Amino acid sequence: MSPKRFHTIKPEIRVLGIDDGRFIPHSKGTVDIVGVVYRGPYFFEGVMKTKIAIDGLDATEKFALMINNSPYFGEIRVVVLDGVTFGGFNVVDIRKLFSLTGLPIISITREKPNLPQIKAALRNLSYFDLRWGVMENAGELFEVEIKPTLNPVYLHVAGILYEDAKMILKKTSTVANIPEALRVAHLIASGLT
Amino acid sequence: MSPKRFHTIKPEIRVLGIDDGRFIPHSKGTVDIVGVVYRGPYFFEGVMKTKIAIDGLDATEKFALMINNSPYFGEIRVVVLDGVTFGGFNVVDIRKLFSLTGLPIISITREKPNLPQIKAALRNLSYFDLRWGVMENAGELFEVEIKPTLNPVYLHVAGILYEDAKMILKKTSTVANIPEALRVAHLIASGLT
Repeated sequence: MSPKRFHTIKPEIRVLGIDDGRFIPHSKGTVDIVGVVYRGPYFFEGVMKTKIAIDGLDATEKFALMINNSPYFGEIRVVVLDGVTFGGFNVVDIRKLFSLTGLPIISITREKPNLPQIKAALRNLSYFDLRWGVMENAGELFEVEIKPTLNPVYLHVAGILYEDAKMILKKTSTVANIPEALRVAHLIASGLT
Repeated sequence: MSPKRFHTIKPEIRVLGIDDGRFIPHSKGTVDIVGVVYRGPYFFEGVMKTKIAIDGLDATEKFALMINNSPYFGEIRVVVLDGVTFGGFNVVDIRKLFSLTGLPIISITREKPNLPQIKAALRNLSYFDLRWGVMENAGELFEVEIKPTLNPVYLHVAGILYEDAKMILKKTSTVANIPEALRVAHLIASGLT
């Protein structure tokens, strides 16, 4: 699928932010995933949730099901993820998530990903080749300044041009260097689960 | 305790909105309670949660514990409840909640409470006199127009003057006729629990 082009980016664009809840690293079981929909940077529209296996392999598929079955699906224009690993090392394939949902995906982190460290950690888990392949499939890493007064953030994108992703992030952030949908998804996921 | 007086109401006032999650009426067990803190009408600050017994008697105490133990306690200036009954007929004593937390309480409903109907329902439960006493302790019901284009809402207040409550509700609402903290608490409680 070719990337979505954004000829204009409305200030009221609907963004879905997704983050994971608290869990005990390396334990068995599942972790809660929370999605929050914002309209522009100020209006909270709704929530959705799913569960994925801690250190599992089901994140991409579970995220796609959550998004596609949500009542907000028709309104959402872009999905913003907190990195690509959730519930430990359950890695989201952002290109596959784009093709399963038809929605552009932006993965954002505040720290520059330390790939050698991640690679070493993945070697301790089953299906190393599969997981590392998904990590590599995230593609190029972009460094971008969202707020002049804050640290830059790091992006992977799928189904969207870097320049469009940057513009959307700038338009949907307020005081933080991430979109409000993602900031609030993090607060809810870590506060309620 | 005498009511809190608000000499000025800052546009960035911190409001805690509280609502209950989904549950099966008349069942045994607990229902999730979600609290959302907003700074003014646009900024989501955080969440808190507790559980109360369905049709139980512990709402007032559980709400007070949740509020007083929250990291946001020192910042919150007013608490806005979705009515006074939660998890079926677990009634919050708004005057007691004011005295336990030191925070003004506003209970808000979109429908005018049908007291004869509520009284009849309470007669089917244990501790009728206690529950009905708590309902009556909510005091005077005020009808107030928050948005000229929307239906009026109905308030009970404790620890705050009606005129101050009205001003706070107007300053912390956007498109709805209730404060954003309460609108979002409802979305989260019903969407995630």
